[in-house]
Amino acid sequence: METKIYSAKMEVIISDKRPTIMIGERINPTGKKKLSEALRVGDLDVVRREAIAQVESGAHILDVNVAASGVNEIEVLPKAVEAIMGVVDVPLCIDINNPATIEETLKIYEGKAIVNSVSGEEKSLSEVLPLVKEYGAAVIGLTIGDKGIPKTTGKRLEIAHKIVERAEVIGIPREDIIIDCLALSLGSDDQAGLVTLETIQRVKKELGVNQTLGASNISFGLPDRPLVNKSFLALAIGAGVTCPTVDAAKVKSTITAIDLILGRDRFSQGFIKEYRRREAHFA
Amino acid sequence: METKIYSAKMEVIISDKRPTIMIGERINPTGKKKLSEALRVGDLDVVRREAIAQVESGAHILDVNVAASGVNEIEVLPKAVEAIMGVVDVPLCIDINNPATIEETLKIYEGKAIVNSVSGEEKSLSEVLPLVKEYGAAVIGLTIGDKGIPKTTGKRLEIAHKIVERAEVIGIPREDIIIDCLALSLGSDDQAGLVTLETIQRVKKELGVNQTLGASNISFGLPDRPLVNKSFLALAIGAGVTCPTVDAAKVKSTITAIDLILGRDRFSQGFIKEYRRREAHFA
Repeated sequence: METKIYSAKMEVIISDKRPTIMIGERINPTGKKKLSEALRVGDLDVVRREAIAQVESGAHILDVNVAASGVNEIEVLPKAVEAIMGVVDVPLCIDINNPATIEETLKIYEGKAIVNSVSGEEKSLSEVLPLVKEYGAAVIGLTIGDKGIPKTTGKRLEIAHKIVERAEVIGIPREDIIIDCLALSLGSDDQAGLVTLETIQRVKKELGVNQTLGASNISFGLPDRPLVNKSFLALAIGAGVTCPTVDAAKVKSTITAIDLILGRDRFSQGFIKEYRRREAHFA
Repeated sequence: METKIYSAKMEVIISDKRPTIMIGERINPTGKKKLSEALRVGDLDVVRREAIAQVESGAHILDVNVAASGVNEIEVLPKAVEAIMGVVDVPLCIDINNPATIEETLKIYEGKAIVNSVSGEEKSLSEVLPLVKEYGAAVIGLTIGDKGIPKTTGKRLEIAHKIVERAEVIGIPREDIIIDCLALSLGSDDQAGLVTLETIQRVKKELGVNQTLGASNISFGLPDRPLVNKSFLALAIGAGVTCPTVDAAKVKSTITAIDLILGRDRFSQGFIKEYRRREAHFA
């Protein structure tokens, strides 16, 4: 299944027949003091610089999140999106807390964005999906239900089915739904990785939709997080994730290796190109 | 399914419910001048040292291969096995070219070894399997047929089925068959990884047997081989490989991360222990 996302100047196709698409995660003030402060005072230069750096590192789509205390999302998010559109050409993933922000942001976005996110909660489904439909966007569906994130594969899968059904009922095509099976920390539950991987495999088999995943949460509280994150990325992409949400600078080389192994890199070109880029960079 | 292998002093259980078992690959003269020369003159000290080093690095089973020009396998292999049994306790995987060597080696081996290997070729099936049965060993079945290594998943799978059927007919239980779906170089065929991974998944689903794989061949001719090999290990273990043939010193940390993610490491103990060992080593 192909999900097509575009900006005014660039189209990105997400598909398990093509190289993995990296959604850049870094424009997000959580845990970032400097970015939080800049957003509070309406200074968008940090956002612009972060956008440029991520695209240079290979991000194909940028997630834009401005949720920090003291920041009025509905006012700041559209401005951040405009600032980013002014410096990079990649399509955007609009990360919202407040559904009212979706409309204000999609109005000024040039192209087809991803709305991040809808959950399986009734309130979210009824508020977010009609706006996604109206603006012709794609949407990330989180496997969170009215009682939070289920522990079992079966319950998470039910939520994924529910989101796809509810979206299709109002006319959002299945290819515009991207499911996120959610990775929780292995540090607090040693079965957390397996449940997520099994859910990803079943979503792929039963729904066939594209899938994202924030792959770094899995290692929270563990030592050598990069090792765990990279191994998890290989397992998650092998299971069915096609557009992980990542720090492109940290994982691009691993992702090119995974794509090569999965037969998605004709004549090894992407892998060799990334290897040469790294060699030139560190020479 | 559980495959039990043992030496006089130690049992190893191979199963997808347990941590991955590493078969140490380094006692193999291919490409190793010093080891080849030592074997030619009957000096087994290099073999002993390599055995000890691999077990210290975490290998659970050691593969023993003495095939080099000028080395009489039937004479040297039993001696190498005796030498190794004299310095380490782990069970062994007897890597033979000449079926006549199997008997000479299994006669002196104390425990239940793995015979490496039988292929799907008629000659191999009829010569090797009766000896495996007679000595109560386990056996690695390579997906190679009378016309070589097939390019397609379907054909490799047929061979895996054939090996299991032929072994069961003469009374070798299925749990004592370990299939090797074979990894060829991505450098010469960009679909080589995908074919192997698909075959592994189908062998797991259709036959349920344990599986090994020499995971380093995949990167032959490519730059940054460790990156490709580690990513491939994650994908291969995720697909169904339970006892890869590896250089334990190079991949142990990656394998502990993979086991942790796959829910095979209770309370993250194995991963944390390996992390501490590395820290202590490099401190």
